[in-house]
Amino acid sequence: MVAVEIPGFWAVVPAGGAGTRLWPLSRSASPKFLHDLTGSGRSLLQQTYDRLGPIVGDRFLVVTGDAHREAVTGQLDALPAGAILAEPTARDSMAAIGLAAAVLERRGAEVMGSFAADHVITDEDLFARAVADAAAAARDGWLVTIGIEPTFASPAFGYIHQGEPLDEHPAARRVVEFVEKPSVPVAEEYLATGRYRWNAGMFVVRPTVLLDLLAEQDAQFAGDLRAIAAEPGRLGELWGRLPRIAIDHAVAEPAAAAGRVVTVPGGFGWDDVGDFDSLAELLGKDEECTILGDADVVHVLQATGLVVPGSGRVVAVVGLDDVVIVDTPDALLVTTRERAQDVKGIVAALKEKGRTDLT
Amino acid sequence: MVAVEIPGFWAVVPAGGAGTRLWPLSRSASPKFLHDLTGSGRSLLQQTYDRLGPIVGDRFLVVTGDAHREAVTGQLDALPAGAILAEPTARDSMAAIGLAAAVLERRGAEVMGSFAADHVITDEDLFARAVADAAAAARDGWLVTIGIEPTFASPAFGYIHQGEPLDEHPAARRVVEFVEKPSVPVAEEYLATGRYRWNAGMFVVRPTVLLDLLAEQDAQFAGDLRAIAAEPGRLGELWGRLPRIAIDHAVAEPAAAAGRVVTVPGGFGWDDVGDFDSLAELLGKDEECTILGDADVVHVLQATGLVVPGSGRVVAVVGLDDVVIVDTPDALLVTTRERAQDVKGIVAALKEKGRTDLT
Repeated sequence: MVAVEIPGFWAVVPAGGAGTRLWPLSRSASPKFLHDLTGSGRSLLQQTYDRLGPIVGDRFLVVTGDAHREAVTGQLDALPAGAILAEPTARDSMAAIGLAAAVLERRGAEVMGSFAADHVITDEDLFARAVADAAAAARDGWLVTIGIEPTFASPAFGYIHQGEPLDEHPAARRVVEFVEKPSVPVAEEYLATGRYRWNAGMFVVRPTVLLDLLAEQDAQFAGDLRAIAAEPGRLGELWGRLPRIAIDHAVAEPAAAAGRVVTVPGGFGWDDVGDFDSLAELLGKDEECTILGDADVVHVLQATGLVVPGSGRVVAVVGLDDVVIVDTPDALLVTTRERAQDVKGIVAALKEKGRTDLT
Repeated sequence: MVAVEIPGFWAVVPAGGAGTRLWPLSRSASPKFLHDLTGSGRSLLQQTYDRLGPIVGDRFLVVTGDAHREAVTGQLDALPAGAILAEPTARDSMAAIGLAAAVLERRGAEVMGSFAADHVITDEDLFARAVADAAAAARDGWLVTIGIEPTFASPAFGYIHQGEPLDEHPAARRVVEFVEKPSVPVAEEYLATGRYRWNAGMFVVRPTVLLDLLAEQDAQFAGDLRAIAAEPGRLGELWGRLPRIAIDHAVAEPAAAAGRVVTVPGGFGWDDVGDFDSLAELLGKDEECTILGDADVVHVLQATGLVVPGSGRVVAVVGLDDVVIVDTPDALLVTTRERAQDVKGIVAALKEKGRTDLT
């Protein structure tokens, strides 16, 4: 199956978040989405664009920080004018996606879907199918979330508790509730029921429905977003007073409680590349040493794990299992897959020492 | 006790050997003896010079490769003229120490002692005492070796099997034989007897005695060395035909078999810094992460081992025990203390790949 364009459907791609657990590769000045983390020759942002292109054509809107506008334009040189919304400051996902919704409402978009710029998706055809299912339900006024089929009892994601299917859209099921990141035992219980999916923040909805749902919770927030869309010159004036809140809390959770959210299944293979352990899992086999970059400069003697050579220097590894080595021109990280989560502690320590040049 | 100068005694310091197990710090172009491996601010060569100065004054002779003459001069800027003998090519220790003996024989030196340029000695006063004991026995015509008191059953060193003490030099014992590097169980047996010491290649002897002992085994070898000393212009002509053989095999073993070698005890704390495990042991405590270099650029979260920051870059280590990280401007090594011996395999692989710029 080849992805089929969905008429009137717009992709909204929030491109933000430094991802401190991928330091020293990902930094505030050069966040995760700008990097080629899969060795494909394309950055995660470019892969997101490539994946959505067949579905939306030119109807693509990136929401990113002012600081990254140039880098985004550089990586996506085929973007039409007006395809980048630049946020003066980061104000969490409701402001970013809400602004896109307000802009698209004025452009007459029928349906929109939000897709993070830094996720990896394995099967693009299945992804396109899920988006089409979601868009069909969204046209009928539902807030639709694509629920990722969980592959293990991860404590790192929020979960979607799904209920009964809709008669008119059999692929879509009502969302009973969104639940926060659980402990591993609780996640195991979720998986055993077969009724929980991972929340990857993929929301598909009519722009007007999203803004109206927001208005029910916070009329001024929705009003400000629509005011900015109507008069872009007011961005500087209004942006700073928008609440810092995730779209999940601002809209998705209350809407689910009101029975207005459905989920369609996403079994296309998904990874948010949360840390170097996920990246090693994604790229390699456990018994090998995976190299992301120029394998010619890496010399491995009886070692497994992940090596990212990034400074041109030779990297030699001897006798370590599940090691993670990330070599950049100004900083080097050595850890293990097991401890990959704790890399954020190094970033915190560097910030404390005033080394923001490195974070 | 302060070291007392020994009249007529010369120090011979062979400065050679790349030490591939200390790669990427030590390389053919920049061998171990040129590096400050103890964080003292002085290279091992400079420390050797500092240690011997009080004992020999100006009577100091370095034997090194032509390629290192400039670096040696740069590090030892107080050396008098004629204090460096440059070998056109490396021809093992008999040629190096034998040439020094021939030169010193002509200079009228009474006794000489050979001391490697890349060993670490803890107690310099005890060292000076051992050298004085050795020089006293050497004046009476003995070939004297300083036998290091073994601190564990190392399979990495040759051993000296000692016999009865000399009546006229109670500190000196006859050497029954030199034995090659043993297995660990054999080394344990050696230690249990209390009659074995490590052979650190510290030979103290009259130059003429050494050359005459060599002549008994290989008259042409000794003759060539004396010919070069008499006519330095013949170095290029004769050097290339000198046998490549260690002084142990060429002289010490046959002389021991003939009952002409004695040993004096060396209990001064000695380390040949054979690999990064030895270096970690020498510098640090097991439960800590030892940093050799600028500690300001190293960030450690729950890790132990040895970190050598040497490129100016930040080095972050998270959650690894007994790790070894050596960071240089063009090459990075990551291994463990346990596998430190295997670093030579990386050097071999790099040579095979034609990366002699790095070895």
